Amino acid sequence: MNVSGRPTRTLWPSADGTAIEIIDQTRLPHAFVTARLATLDDAAHAIRAMLVRGAPLIGATAAWGLWLALRADASDAALAHAYATLLATRPTAVNLRWALDRVRTHVAPLAPSARAAAARQLAAYVCDEDVALNRGIGVAGLPLIRAIAARKAPGERVNVLTHCNAGWLATVDIGTATAPLYAAHDAGLSVHIWVDETRPRNQGASLTAWELLNHGVPHTVIVDNAGGHLMQHGHVDLVIVGTDRTTATGDVCNKIGTYLKALAAHDNHVPFYVAAPSPSIDWALRDGLREIPIEERAAREVTHLTGRLPDGTVATIALLPEGSPAANPAFDVTPARLVTGLITERGVCDANAAALRALFPDKAPTR
Amino acid sequence: MNVSGRPTRTLWPSADGTAIEIIDQTRLPHAFVTARLATLDDAAHAIRAMLVRGAPLIGATAAWGLWLALRADASDAALAHAYATLLATRPTAVNLRWALDRVRTHVAPLAPSARAAAARQLAAYVCDEDVALNRGIGVAGLPLIRAIAARKAPGERVNVLTHCNAGWLATVDIGTATAPLYAAHDAGLSVHIWVDETRPRNQGASLTAWELLNHGVPHTVIVDNAGGHLMQHGHVDLVIVGTDRTTATGDVCNKIGTYLKALAAHDNHVPFYVAAPSPSIDWALRDGLREIPIEERAAREVTHLTGRLPDGTVATIALLPEGSPAANPAFDVTPARLVTGLITERGVCDANAAALRALFPDKAPTR
Repeated sequence: MNVSGRPTRTLWPSADGTAIEIIDQTRLPHAFVTARLATLDDAAHAIRAMLVRGAPLIGATAAWGLWLALRADASDAALAHAYATLLATRPTAVNLRWALDRVRTHVAPLAPSARAAAARQLAAYVCDEDVALNRGIGVAGLPLIRAIAARKAPGERVNVLTHCNAGWLATVDIGTATAPLYAAHDAGLSVHIWVDETRPRNQGASLTAWELLNHGVPHTVIVDNAGGHLMQHGHVDLVIVGTDRTTATGDVCNKIGTYLKALAAHDNHVPFYVAAPSPSIDWALRDGLREIPIEERAAREVTHLTGRLPDGTVATIALLPEGSPAANPAFDVTPARLVTGLITERGVCDANAAALRALFPDKAPTR
Repeated sequence: MNVSGRPTRTLWPSADGTAIEIIDQTRLPHAFVTARLATLDDAAHAIRAMLVRGAPLIGATAAWGLWLALRADASDAALAHAYATLLATRPTAVNLRWALDRVRTHVAPLAPSARAAAARQLAAYVCDEDVALNRGIGVAGLPLIRAIAARKAPGERVNVLTHCNAGWLATVDIGTATAPLYAAHDAGLSVHIWVDETRPRNQGASLTAWELLNHGVPHTVIVDNAGGHLMQHGHVDLVIVGTDRTTATGDVCNKIGTYLKALAAHDNHVPFYVAAPSPSIDWALRDGLREIPIEERAAREVTHLTGRLPDGTVATIALLPEGSPAANPAFDVTPARLVTGLITERGVCDANAAALRALFPDKAPTR
């Protein structure tokens, strides 16, 4: 998507071909800073310290990280070390292991002298594949927005609410939940996005707002508490969120608070869609509430918040009285019964096992 | 309630009898600072600058403010000026006008020489009356918690979720939503409170947490997004929130986000109670969603947040990218169908017109 009018990915090979460059997302939204990753350790640090975040982007960075490692030393031992180093950066990210396995499987049978080039080629392919997947979600989701726009009076905007950042910053480009939004905006439809700030890490207020702003998409940031009220008063036409993990039955595990928005959408007859690329579907899971363990993250994410002081420097403040504890469940599960539909790269389907199986007969396990 | 082990109200006459003292709530939770109000202007400033907040406490401070004014000048002109000055401090607070009207009606017929003493007496009475009202809510709500405690295994806590600050800091003492919690804790029941941080002004994280901490009630602060997940997993036994305005039919207008918690409670069969002192009931209203206008407050409450820097000083940080707009609806309406019951000073009743009329035959208008 665009940054200052220039199409930009979240990660790209450097012009001299000796490194990759990324957007340092820890500096957003207060500064746009890129970082150069030239070694395995640079790549591992970028993932561990969350300069890059979002499952697809973590996977892509790890794939490039193996290239950086193999370029320096393509021995079996070096490959094993690089694989282990990168895998340990974010132990819970599914895409991380998946990308690393893919590159390792591809290069391990080759002669060491051929490994770096092969890793480079596959890493580039992993990135392009992510972009193609997201573009597919945009193509599939655009008609939903177009249909709402067609019912609007001239000049009226289609109001879409989204939660967290399932945007291009979480992927290589385009994003998942944002894919239909960018597709609609770029097609000339008048869309306006309600951006949930998404406490505790505020990925909505800091990342989704930033990318919509930079691509020129009209938007308004709201606190997570506000969405229900807006739906009660007809100010939301559609909700589109992302998913970290989708069960074979259509339950959706996504950033904490997603479930509350699904309840409000259901109560107010607002369509609630989930942008679910097929890699997010865990075909082994049938009951999201019972089967998906929810990560409890550091209380400090709740008790402290980082932002920009009046002089432009960035500072972290404490919000609670000293002595009050905090809890921080990071995700929740939205039952399929509250999901109007899943927007996949192959099209939109109902959130149930039969519909998912029909759309992905090649991926769903036979029963 | 207790501060550092000493029973403390939010407002009290100074020891020398020449002023009132308050807790400066703008300094909480980072510092406990009291302020002395010796003049009409002091009182007006305390309300306007939100050193005191919460409808009952604003009313009580205004009543004392008239005393401070009349002590300096008890003429008709001075009374009129003081009334107008205090009324203008927070134009939307219902209790403010109600308290001012009450004192003015009481003292206006008296000789100027008798007015200050009469105002002082009535202001003290307004405070004691608020405390009695809240104590009544505690008495009415305690059996709800006791019944849940009786079903628990030994050592298990009753988990109550609350939103915003309908606590003693919003009143003269005890609070409304907190009244049953303090009553249960003081009666030796094992209660634990989930405190919604309550963006955008964070009254949960900064005020409710602070008062529970000081009174010694076990609690955990969570982001507003977390409550639904906690209910899905059985970690919430009961929700109790306050109300800014209650319709004659039991709809509840309260801090933004209350509706989302009511939906989650309903979806998970968690009882959802509203502490509703009878002055919060607007007997003229039948449909909260259609009839209650929702205040849109300054975007800066969403875009900026205040907290404590590592060196202990208090600072305000910007959260959004420069250029992203924000919206800030301050309240929402929870339809009566989602409310398990109203906890009033006269007892608990269902959230509907007949039940409210039966409990308040003297206050409900005849149809």
